[in-house]
Amino acid sequence: MILTVTLNAALDITHHLHRMRPHGSNRVRAVAERAGGKGVNVARILHALGHPTVVTGLAGGLTGRAVRAELASAGLADRMLPIAGESRRTVAVVEESVGDTTILLEPGPVVSAEEWARFLGHVDTLLPDATAVVLSGSLPRGLPEDAYAHLLRLAHTRGVPAVLDADGAALSTALSAGPALVKPNADELTAATGLSDPVAAARALHAAGAEAVVASLGADGLLAVTAQGAWRARSPERLAGNPTGAGDAAVAALTLGLVTGEPWPDRLAEAVALSAAAVAAPLAGDFDPDVHRALRSLVEVRPFRPSPPFATEESVPCP
Amino acid sequence: MILTVTLNAALDITHHLHRMRPHGSNRVRAVAERAGGKGVNVARILHALGHPTVVTGLAGGLTGRAVRAELASAGLADRMLPIAGESRRTVAVVEESVGDTTILLEPGPVVSAEEWARFLGHVDTLLPDATAVVLSGSLPRGLPEDAYAHLLRLAHTRGVPAVLDADGAALSTALSAGPALVKPNADELTAATGLSDPVAAARALHAAGAEAVVASLGADGLLAVTAQGAWRARSPERLAGNPTGAGDAAVAALTLGLVTGEPWPDRLAEAVALSAAAVAAPLAGDFDPDVHRALRSLVEVRPFRPSPPFATEESVPCP
Repeated sequence: MILTVTLNAALDITHHLHRMRPHGSNRVRAVAERAGGKGVNVARILHALGHPTVVTGLAGGLTGRAVRAELASAGLADRMLPIAGESRRTVAVVEESVGDTTILLEPGPVVSAEEWARFLGHVDTLLPDATAVVLSGSLPRGLPEDAYAHLLRLAHTRGVPAVLDADGAALSTALSAGPALVKPNADELTAATGLSDPVAAARALHAAGAEAVVASLGADGLLAVTAQGAWRARSPERLAGNPTGAGDAAVAALTLGLVTGEPWPDRLAEAVALSAAAVAAPLAGDFDPDVHRALRSLVEVRPFRPSPPFATEESVPCP
Repeated sequence: MILTVTLNAALDITHHLHRMRPHGSNRVRAVAERAGGKGVNVARILHALGHPTVVTGLAGGLTGRAVRAELASAGLADRMLPIAGESRRTVAVVEESVGDTTILLEPGPVVSAEEWARFLGHVDTLLPDATAVVLSGSLPRGLPEDAYAHLLRLAHTRGVPAVLDADGAALSTALSAGPALVKPNADELTAATGLSDPVAAARALHAAGAEAVVASLGADGLLAVTAQGAWRARSPERLAGNPTGAGDAAVAALTLGLVTGEPWPDRLAEAVALSAAAVAAPLAGDFDPDVHRALRSLVEVRPFRPSPPFATEESVPCP
């Protein structure tokens, strides 16, 4: 099974209304809610693809209970660790008349040092059954900024390849722990490296310890820098829709590729197709299976040779 | 004790942030939540004034559990009846930079006929200990529009005077059941009667069966039309603040006056002072005790004789 870790799990609430009047009182027409956080979205997609997954992370309070109740009703195996703090909510206010959404993100709980230590032990009991582990999303308050580095070392000790989707200090402090793959987006690439050129930035993350870097560049598709080579992959057509969750779909596809060991171009084609299929679905964690099927063979994947020369001491073993 | 009924109880969530960017992603700085709904606000104020209260109504799902947990932590006696549906949330987005608030109101649960019948039996077991019952707020979906008329008849049978704060059909269908007091605001007065003149509209509600009508007219204070006479009461100064909950404070004061039987001018002075003190407090259900004390003796209460002649067959006993 693939283990997904969501340290700042959320209850994603969607309010549908005709139009939101700022500074007024607005009656919501319909409410939907489900478990969220990037790792949960990845697990939902893997589950829909028929791949066994286990969801872990931190969940607390009545909001945490609502998160777990929804995981259960979605058929996702839930091994969340309960914490004392109250899990966060996100509220997405969808205005049907303008087709646009306002998002409110609560800060989430403060996790104690004792809870974090307990979580490391908890993950260690789950790793032996995992073929890969996915570490996704923001860190709740109270965790050390190198929390992902701790989890990566734990996975490394157990011989489980780890995929990391994080940003800022959570990403930069984790690179030296050798994640099998990191998946920053364009903004995260720049923030982590100070480099505006995506190729140079991806190379820098690779040089800093990530075995593979796959950057998601929105309409420009994916950019991969790995020890086996470098590729660009993009969809032949640009789909309109909900970009939230497109990155999680790419992570799901890339993690499956890591587990099956299929060639990089195939992994990247699948990641682009699944990502586009996620854009075509209204909720993060869902994808449109027709779009997925239709696009899979149409994605263009082209190798390229990064210049200045791609190979570095860190990424290519010396002869 | 005073029993307050909140049929569409809510979890009131407040999101504090610097400024909300519509159609953007907004990080919330701080979150507060507490039990809400007009009847809960009334009970909170009565409790703060040292008067024994019991909170009843309908609460369901994990949101209902959060409502009840907060009632317990506030020290309010909770006799809510559990229902299968999920209680509603309200989200108030407070923008600190502009001092303004956007409110999102979820629709709330659908209540089954069986749950409603069970609730009527439940209230009947609470009424014998009540000196008054307060019926406040909107009706959840599934209830008959004359739900308050049913509750009023039950209270009447048990000899418990009832205060009603409702609008639309919930108000108009309840008048013939003879509430001891109704407290519409200006908009509700007009909507219920089709009359734009508040005095004429209050008289019409009185004639239709309400023993007393106290209308809250915002900065214009209170207008009372009762079998004992008619009065206008207003604060000498206008306070800036949060008007949500001002009407609930007036209901709390008027219900206490009903229970103690103090003269109408004193009840109205207290209602205006408590209402202004609620405007001065940031959260509905709270009031500023200093404002309350300071204003009590300063409120102007003036009797008036409604013209055309106030007395009607319905409101004044024939000699």
